[in-house]
Amino acid sequence: MIIQIEPESDIPIYQQITNQIIVGIARGSIQQGESLPSVRTFAADLGINMHTVNKSYHQLEKKGMIRIVPKSGAVISSPQDFNESSLERLKDDYQLLIAESLVVGMSNEQIKELVSSIIMNFKKLNN
Amino acid sequence: MIIQIEPESDIPIYQQITNQIIVGIARGSIQQGESLPSVRTFAADLGINMHTVNKSYHQLEKKGMIRIVPKSGAVISSPQDFNESSLERLKDDYQLLIAESLVVGMSNEQIKELVSSIIMNFKKLNN
Repeated sequence: MIIQIEPESDIPIYQQITNQIIVGIARGSIQQGESLPSVRTFAADLGINMHTVNKSYHQLEKKGMIRIVPKSGAVISSPQDFNESSLERLKDDYQLLIAESLVVGMSNEQIKELVSSIIMNFKKLNN
Repeated sequence: MIIQIEPESDIPIYQQITNQIIVGIARGSIQQGESLPSVRTFAADLGINMHTVNKSYHQLEKKGMIRIVPKSGAVISSPQDFNESSLERLKDDYQLLIAESLVVGMSNEQIKELVSSIIMNFKKLNN
C-alpha cells in the first residue's frame, strides 16, 4: 500500500489518507480483510503525527470501511460488513454531489458520462 | 427557501445548511443570482448561533457556490462563475464516492442506476 501525502494540498492530510485508502480498496491494491499498519508504524513511515493517522482511522471506522479488532488492529471491512445505513448515507452523498454538479452547469449527460468513465477505470484496474 | 435543521443528525448543523442550500439551488427553489439572508437574520430565523451560519457561508464560498459581494451579501453563483478547478474537484469527489460504493459492494449497474434516478428526480423538480 503506497500512500502519497501532498503537503501543499487544500485537502487536510488525514482526509488524504482516508481517501487514498478507500480508493486503494476499490482498486484492489488494499485487500478486504487485510490489516492496516498500526497508527504508530503508519505515522512513522509517512513522517507525520500519530494524531493525524488516528483521525483518519476514526473516519474510516465511522464510514464502516475498517473495524478495530483487538490484537489485529484496523481491519479492512468486507462487503458483508456493511448495512442498509451505509447505503443510505451513500445515496445522500450522491444526491449532494449531483446537486453540486448541476449547479456548476454540468448537464445530465456529462454527469452520467463522468460516472461511467470512472467506473470503467476501476473495472480495468480490477481485471 | 426553507432550511430544516435536524439537531439529532450525525451531520454537523453548518454542513446541513450547506447541503440544503446546494440541493435547493439544484432544485430551483433557490435562484442563481439571488442573495442569501444576512448571517444575523439567517441565524435568528433558525434559532442557531451566527458562527454556525458563518461557517456554512464560508464553506459555500470555498466551493464557489456563493460570492460575497459588498452590500448584496452572499450571492448565489451562476454556472459562468465556475471554472475548470471546480470541475476537477467534482471529478475527485465522484472518484472517491464511486470507490466507496464499490467497497460497500454496490455493482457498477447499481451505481449507474442510482445516479440516473437522482438526476431524473432533479429534472422533474425543474420542469
